[in-house]
Amino acid sequence: MKFILENTDPKSKARAGVVKTDHGDIETPIFMPVGTAGSVKAVHQRELTYDVKAQIILGNTYHLYLRPGLDILEKAGGLHKFNGWSKPILTDSGGYQVFSLSGTRKITEKGVMFKSHIDGSKHNFTPEGVMDIQRTIGADIIMAFDECTPYPCDFGYARNSMEMTHRWLKRCIDRFDSTEGKYGYSQTLFPIVQGSVYKDLRKQSAEFIASCGREGNAIGGLSVGEPAEMMYEMTELVTEILPTDKPRYLMGVGTPANILEGIALGVDMFDCVMPTRNARNGMLFTTEGVINMRNEKWKDDFSPIDSGFNSYVSNFYTKAYLRHLVISKEILAAQIASIHNLSFYLWLVGQAREKIKSGEFATWKNMMVEKVSRRL
Amino acid sequence: MKFILENTDPKSKARAGVVKTDHGDIETPIFMPVGTAGSVKAVHQRELTYDVKAQIILGNTYHLYLRPGLDILEKAGGLHKFNGWSKPILTDSGGYQVFSLSGTRKITEKGVMFKSHIDGSKHNFTPEGVMDIQRTIGADIIMAFDECTPYPCDFGYARNSMEMTHRWLKRCIDRFDSTEGKYGYSQTLFPIVQGSVYKDLRKQSAEFIASCGREGNAIGGLSVGEPAEMMYEMTELVTEILPTDKPRYLMGVGTPANILEGIALGVDMFDCVMPTRNARNGMLFTTEGVINMRNEKWKDDFSPIDSGFNSYVSNFYTKAYLRHLVISKEILAAQIASIHNLSFYLWLVGQAREKIKSGEFATWKNMMVEKVSRRL
Repeated sequence: MKFILENTDPKSKARAGVVKTDHGDIETPIFMPVGTAGSVKAVHQRELTYDVKAQIILGNTYHLYLRPGLDILEKAGGLHKFNGWSKPILTDSGGYQVFSLSGTRKITEKGVMFKSHIDGSKHNFTPEGVMDIQRTIGADIIMAFDECTPYPCDFGYARNSMEMTHRWLKRCIDRFDSTEGKYGYSQTLFPIVQGSVYKDLRKQSAEFIASCGREGNAIGGLSVGEPAEMMYEMTELVTEILPTDKPRYLMGVGTPANILEGIALGVDMFDCVMPTRNARNGMLFTTEGVINMRNEKWKDDFSPIDSGFNSYVSNFYTKAYLRHLVISKEILAAQIASIHNLSFYLWLVGQAREKIKSGEFATWKNMMVEKVSRRL
Repeated sequence: MKFILENTDPKSKARAGVVKTDHGDIETPIFMPVGTAGSVKAVHQRELTYDVKAQIILGNTYHLYLRPGLDILEKAGGLHKFNGWSKPILTDSGGYQVFSLSGTRKITEKGVMFKSHIDGSKHNFTPEGVMDIQRTIGADIIMAFDECTPYPCDFGYARNSMEMTHRWLKRCIDRFDSTEGKYGYSQTLFPIVQGSVYKDLRKQSAEFIASCGREGNAIGGLSVGEPAEMMYEMTELVTEILPTDKPRYLMGVGTPANILEGIALGVDMFDCVMPTRNARNGMLFTTEGVINMRNEKWKDDFSPIDSGFNSYVSNFYTKAYLRHLVISKEILAAQIASIHNLSFYLWLVGQAREKIKSGEFATWKNMMVEKVSRRL
């Protein structure tokens, strides 16, 4: 993997660049749709390519490990072959889901014991094991095994957890560097900055992560319930420390406004379930603001869902029709809304990239944050 | 509407023709995907056009009347404008759903009183009212209001019901012929043959329906639980009587084998929820036979879903991936399976048409009935 930094905005820390992988280039800043179990929910692979214009998608290690399982994925020749998505894939470490989905779990220095949320079977994730699992899934970008602390989290817990995450990282690196990809293309490992909302810890963690000298770095443990201002403060502190010549990935973020602010703080990569999850609940992010599609005011609004950007689905279907589908619980509602929301997110980061390149990012960002945060 | 009979198979009653409507031509024999509430479940409109290659879809009057309701549909300029499907649409009369979905209902000579399955509100369908409703929905082909008798059904009930359906038909025709379409294009009314599984009644009903001289005719009250042989016997008896220069529509049929047999008996149009409903349950109809996608045998079968015909979705996704999506309850499973099943149905009737034109239908039909009925 290679990162080429192309432009830096004169009035903010926003950057435009390109991440080069064996599955193709990723133009940053970028949003990565979440394909939990090997499918971006309600979206066909060709729609991801041609409508959403996704350049990289995310897969969840926890879900893929449980279903279809590593034997199937390895037999298929990795996740790209299994699901037919031939552009880059990033996998998380599975830690977040182990903590949030699995009923019983026990964290020790060694790793995490947990029970499957599907059938209650017992499993064990260790830093080493999670490297091997992601090698087998075949992601282009592999995440280190960390503990994502909740919010709020007391200082002592946050410090101990961060220190364990750092020790785990060393084990991840040892294992990753002593193994090879299984399918003939390169994989790379991103370490993750933790430290909850404590400046000292974040600074310490960012310095440690930077010192590891990996090809890209991530910021975890944010967007877990803390106020947005606190998230921005932590992000800014961390991007001051992380090297400028490596891509920075802010995990699990966020709303369109969160993403624009994150870009302004020097973040290059984002992922979030929000555009797809909210789509399935009838909530749309548009160029004019947020729409609750269940609202009766849309019942006879025959204007396109969003004519503010070029998107077949958003331009073709009307608000009235989509509202009818949402109210009638038609599957097509989830399909239309998911494609729309993802297309909008990708359009938004694409616009940000253009504005960075033309030097207009800062002004444009302030205008857009206001616009995309409105409730219509 | 105009029907052009192009070819008749020398060894069966199968026919190839074209139904010409203001929304375009329909090449028969044809299968019509069911778009219950204005959406063919889990399938985008452009997928219906370019993948499924649907030439006409069906809408359910009962569902559309309740949601989005006639005021919205009329404001939109009819269902075509509302859902963006610009090819022909056929609507049923709503009778079937009133009898099967609505909890309380009361049938009298005047019509049917029923309660909405959505909110329990009371409604009244009469032959006249149902003509007006379908005029407002804006279907190209409108169905007469009939009573679809269940199976089994005693002779007395079947006779009385058929006679009422005939009296209702006269009222439908009076209303239809004294009103006009609302959106500037032609609509046509198909009467429906009833008579349960009684030859005398079917003969009597077919003669009455034929005597009405409408532009097309339908056969109702079959595929309601009777043995397939009985359905074929009734269909054959009726198609002997219905005029050859008008299209014949066998309502609610059926499996691929049922459709092939129906074509052989001189039927031109079919509709059924089976390809989409079964798709949502992981059951696939393929060129090689029926697949239960939940079966463990597919878990590492990385061959395409169906390579027996040209279809992006069926050729692109593998059985193993689709099985994983079905087991994981991913929405994409329903999307892939629905497109596949519908594409297969449309491919099958298209093949039938070609074989009729080349005079090879009868032999091909016998081979295909055996093939598509196998369980893989």
